[in-house]
Amino acid sequence: MKIVRVHTDEGISYGGVEPEGVRLYQGSPLVAWEPTEVVVPFAQAHLLAPVFPTKVVAVGRNYVAHADETGSEVPNDPIIFIKPATSVIGPGSPVVYPPDSQNVQHEAELAVVVGTVARNTKAEDVQSVILGYTAGNDVTARDLQRKDGQWTRGKGFDTFCPLGPAIETELDPLLGLSIECRVNGEVRQSGSTADMVFGVAELIEFITRVMTLLPGDVILTGTPAGISSVLPGDTMEVEIEGIGVLMNPVGRL
Amino acid sequence: MKIVRVHTDEGISYGGVEPEGVRLYQGSPLVAWEPTEVVVPFAQAHLLAPVFPTKVVAVGRNYVAHADETGSEVPNDPIIFIKPATSVIGPGSPVVYPPDSQNVQHEAELAVVVGTVARNTKAEDVQSVILGYTAGNDVTARDLQRKDGQWTRGKGFDTFCPLGPAIETELDPLLGLSIECRVNGEVRQSGSTADMVFGVAELIEFITRVMTLLPGDVILTGTPAGISSVLPGDTMEVEIEGIGVLMNPVGRL
Repeated sequence: MKIVRVHTDEGISYGGVEPEGVRLYQGSPLVAWEPTEVVVPFAQAHLLAPVFPTKVVAVGRNYVAHADETGSEVPNDPIIFIKPATSVIGPGSPVVYPPDSQNVQHEAELAVVVGTVARNTKAEDVQSVILGYTAGNDVTARDLQRKDGQWTRGKGFDTFCPLGPAIETELDPLLGLSIECRVNGEVRQSGSTADMVFGVAELIEFITRVMTLLPGDVILTGTPAGISSVLPGDTMEVEIEGIGVLMNPVGRL
Repeated sequence: MKIVRVHTDEGISYGGVEPEGVRLYQGSPLVAWEPTEVVVPFAQAHLLAPVFPTKVVAVGRNYVAHADETGSEVPNDPIIFIKPATSVIGPGSPVVYPPDSQNVQHEAELAVVVGTVARNTKAEDVQSVILGYTAGNDVTARDLQRKDGQWTRGKGFDTFCPLGPAIETELDPLLGLSIECRVNGEVRQSGSTADMVFGVAELIEFITRVMTLLPGDVILTGTPAGISSVLPGDTMEVEIEGIGVLMNPVGRL
């Protein structure tokens, strides 16, 4: 099932993707919901970020080939960092190139959407805390990331966390979903979710040993090789098999 | 004015500290509020964290003597990181010593409570976005902080961000407020807010060039020298002149 959050003439609501359009839901898949009788044609449903997290917990160097390209070791344990909720935008919204950076890069990532309160969740129990998966772009001001050492500033700018287009509830990343990033139509990153160093279950166990995850929180699971720079005017597309295409232009204020 | 958030027989509410007790407010100082006729004696008002942030933005190495004791340089720009909202606890609540760490330390810090939406706020305009100041303890699993390189795990555990006891709205940290941390009554950290490398105004300008701050968000402004380890059973007290004492025991689940 593909869940989206949309802005239509009826207001903002969750909905389910059907062949002829988006069936609006009453309520939220994070709490309680039911389908309504209203199906809005795709052209009249503006997609929003499919979820509104309290925090985005992201994982560094989780694909061997990407660790290699950054000249870094693959860590023994996941390296986690936080992107603030204020960095989240939806499909189609512009990523704003900050004046303080000279090197903004894309990072295509599988995003886990957490559906419940999760604390000390064991790897074998993670299915019960996952609502589904969406695509994410861990946009990074690479120069500021390197300068600071800590990654929070380089990865924490407003608009630096595009999410979408939909939450797919029936997926198994271990089976190897293709994950790709294109810039202006040219493929820059191409990988498989089967190549993650730490899988989704291990990541959730690791993160929830530290902090409580809340409904709607998002885990970005790391990016495959092929990171590259973008400029204002470029268009980034993150495509994950079974989820769809997350497109965001790069703009400048 | 000292603002607190309290749990009383009337429920949970904001209030103002008066000589004879806490005058309960209707509403929130972050939105709209008014004093009620009810004054609850201190003994019947259980203090909670005075604010419920969407994020805590913290600053590393912002006192020269503390940078020295960690063997680090004072940075040219503030080094920021995020503690998740799930790490926040109130006065008196136990900091839980995580099984994954062998070295948990206190860090006494002046905490700025943001009162409005703030983005690209200039240093000269920060008074308009500050609701007030409280005390914070940037509790840190030093071993995990060093192991990971990124500070998120070591500083992001549930209960690792005590805040309180009150938000003081009439303070000027530039005048030099004494800031102290005691463990079991023994002074471990002792400094002055006048010794920050980057002052509150510069920090807010720097952070809001990156990310939007929301009402209730908290900025931890760095810790003076004297960090030291604590163990389950210890009691930590952060005292800041003009604000009060933030006491938290260390526990183990």
